[in-house]
Amino acid sequence: MSRAGIVGGGVIGGGWAARFLLMGWDVAFHDPDPGAWDALHETLAQARRALPMLYDTALPAEGRLTRAASVAEAVAGADWVQESVPERLPLKHAVLAEIAAAAPEGTVVGSSTSGFTPTALREGLPEGAPVIVAHPFNPVYLLPLVEVVGAEGHVADRARAILTGIGMRPLLLRREIDGHIADRLLESVWREALWLIQDDIATTEEIDEAIRLGFGLRWAQMGLFETYRTAGGDAGMAHFIAQFAPALHWPWSRLTDVPDLDGPLAEKIAAQSDAQSGHLSIRALQARRDEALVAILRALRARDAGAGSVIAAHEATVADLPEDGVPLITVRRTVPIDWTDMNGHMNEGRYGQIFSDAAERVMALVGADADYVARGLSYFTVETTVKYLAETHAGEAVEVASRVTQGAGKKLRVVHEMRRQGETEPLATCDQLMIHVSLTTRRACDPPEDVEARVRALADAHR
Amino acid sequence: MSRAGIVGGGVIGGGWAARFLLMGWDVAFHDPDPGAWDALHETLAQARRALPMLYDTALPAEGRLTRAASVAEAVAGADWVQESVPERLPLKHAVLAEIAAAAPEGTVVGSSTSGFTPTALREGLPEGAPVIVAHPFNPVYLLPLVEVVGAEGHVADRARAILTGIGMRPLLLRREIDGHIADRLLESVWREALWLIQDDIATTEEIDEAIRLGFGLRWAQMGLFETYRTAGGDAGMAHFIAQFAPALHWPWSRLTDVPDLDGPLAEKIAAQSDAQSGHLSIRALQARRDEALVAILRALRARDAGAGSVIAAHEATVADLPEDGVPLITVRRTVPIDWTDMNGHMNEGRYGQIFSDAAERVMALVGADADYVARGLSYFTVETTVKYLAETHAGEAVEVASRVTQGAGKKLRVVHEMRRQGETEPLATCDQLMIHVSLTTRRACDPPEDVEARVRALADAHR
Repeated sequence: MSRAGIVGGGVIGGGWAARFLLMGWDVAFHDPDPGAWDALHETLAQARRALPMLYDTALPAEGRLTRAASVAEAVAGADWVQESVPERLPLKHAVLAEIAAAAPEGTVVGSSTSGFTPTALREGLPEGAPVIVAHPFNPVYLLPLVEVVGAEGHVADRARAILTGIGMRPLLLRREIDGHIADRLLESVWREALWLIQDDIATTEEIDEAIRLGFGLRWAQMGLFETYRTAGGDAGMAHFIAQFAPALHWPWSRLTDVPDLDGPLAEKIAAQSDAQSGHLSIRALQARRDEALVAILRALRARDAGAGSVIAAHEATVADLPEDGVPLITVRRTVPIDWTDMNGHMNEGRYGQIFSDAAERVMALVGADADYVARGLSYFTVETTVKYLAETHAGEAVEVASRVTQGAGKKLRVVHEMRRQGETEPLATCDQLMIHVSLTTRRACDPPEDVEARVRALADAHR
Repeated sequence: MSRAGIVGGGVIGGGWAARFLLMGWDVAFHDPDPGAWDALHETLAQARRALPMLYDTALPAEGRLTRAASVAEAVAGADWVQESVPERLPLKHAVLAEIAAAAPEGTVVGSSTSGFTPTALREGLPEGAPVIVAHPFNPVYLLPLVEVVGAEGHVADRARAILTGIGMRPLLLRREIDGHIADRLLESVWREALWLIQDDIATTEEIDEAIRLGFGLRWAQMGLFETYRTAGGDAGMAHFIAQFAPALHWPWSRLTDVPDLDGPLAEKIAAQSDAQSGHLSIRALQARRDEALVAILRALRARDAGAGSVIAAHEATVADLPEDGVPLITVRRTVPIDWTDMNGHMNEGRYGQIFSDAAERVMALVGADADYVARGLSYFTVETTVKYLAETHAGEAVEVASRVTQGAGKKLRVVHEMRRQGETEPLATCDQLMIHVSLTTRRACDPPEDVEARVRALADAHR
């Protein structure tokens, strides 16, 4: 069992702790603020609800969480240490020195700093201390990006392996710079937005609308440059750039100056933000954010695009469905938020989807997997009868047990039973008849001998 | 029938034409470039594939497209004129003067300009010409945002009504400024990104990764300020701002200067972009972008969040399912991209979803609608048998015809048949048994008399 030492437990530290725990790591947590432990449990509750929904399979069993009384206790025996104390350099120095003194030799220490460089963080630390920047994005338990700065050689390898292992995508920077990459971009937008508010051009709500109904939708999938390349058309990126070069000298930015973010401007922003979102508690906003993030990430996942491809790739490393057993366990998953309907429960169509996934697993086990489909053969479903026996809700962990009841020639008949994990009472059953087809003719045909033999063997075993 | 005059047919003008057409407007199109007409048809093909997928109902019948030989011909009789010629002020002036001379009295003329103010656009035009900025975002046929600047009184009312009517969300700016709102934000990020590339901190691909795996996912749903408010926690926006005010004086931005976007920097960007995306044609990139945008928008729509709520609100104004007929037409829609599976056709689970939508329509017609559910009563499905008779693919327009075969007491049994619109051959059938329930006890109970009477009447009519 791997163990993470989490030092500093605000929104970011708590998010790290939640991600490590839900990915099966033990976590030792330290924050001198007595309120941090309760806050961690709130974050953990949010993460437990949202993170498993991203996956079409069950995550590893949750790790063990312990409360450490000191930095030294948190980092003792740790395979990874993550520092997320407030963004004040002298404080970071003091905490990192404590960590360096107590962490096991060679354990990588990631700092969540939004802006300090590794060089700045390492001032006063022993030569060669493996302190790097590992800058995540809130909510840490959902967003895959981690900017990794100052990691070289085996430290880089270890950082890459561990962060990938907990479902993140480390972006290794070759050169350090204040603010890394993402926060420089964010800072530029933030500064320009402050001017727009100061000059009464737009309110906080109008700026948010301009982002989320327009370019925000593009950036969630392609980012800046691929979006522009795509918009530029066949003339290519060079043409696009030539077109936009003159605009750099137009007065489209006030970023030659910085507004004073206090007094009237600070009050104006707070008042506008209250008018925009003040009717919702922070917890309600967090819940909305997480539900929308889950839905967007699942949408991208289905297209293997952007952050969705990170989840799909990670899932392949955590899936642990058994290869045999009577009945076969063919699905283990959490019911995601986008599967519910106006009755407040899992929509009947999603039962069809989960039984379809179960059938796909049976197909894979008899050799009719994605490669098989690529070779032009598959099974098509011709009839299903589903009985809905009890309600199922978002966030519930369910599994499907499947039995092959007929397996000869072109026919493959499977009876599925869905239930909550750890329970035996069925939530729904499905009797599903599939026919082997050629994807070229789109008509029924006999399966190859090896596939038919495996189907027959399952039918015999399940009789 | 309403009529739009589209003047200037690049990516943006073509996108406007496609959106108006698909929302049932006649469009007269003019561009002096002989290649523009073919380019329009490519854009139109993309729009025909993507836009209808956003909706769970059929869009109005497509309008008529005509090719106008002149600006005057394009704008004659138009209810809305949209100018999208290249971003050069003298050219805009010349074209807008032609439009103003030929457009019907009072017709609003929207300019797609990314940066010019209405005051700048109106120089030399007759006093009171209703020329405004109506700045959309690419792809215009998918993204709902339009920045409207310089519209007041009845011009503003008309702009709001027309743009909302074609499924967009007009954001009316009170004050004009070069670059409006969104392009100022984009310009700031663009400039900072150029510095990152110039200084070899990051490549185009790394910048895109940093955006789309991190804050891009947040911006697609909440924008900048609501995201920060949500992250700030219970201490509120004022606390968040106080925390970040000092960072404005840190060296996190190079935006006190502007790089030269030619020579080596232009070449570097083009080369990096080629390395990142050069293996994909622009058309392939556009298709990927549109598919991912459709999937994200549909995910947001299901949560009634951000741009998704624009689509949901607009759909309510275009839905036109009949209220009677034997059989009842209960669904008319396009099969969206997120409904297909590895076999390349609509997944069996989605048949369940479409039949569930059909059942919801039957329920609504007997009085068991969303209000009824809110009052604590509903129908739950207890058994379905689906026969899959033929394959269905993304982009196909389908409909469901439903007959109530049993309607007495607690029982409501419906037989659905799905087919392509305009065809009679069934693609699939579903025999669905529903039971009336109390949402308080989650158990079967008799429906109120009025609902039961309507159910019985349908069963009699469909016998």
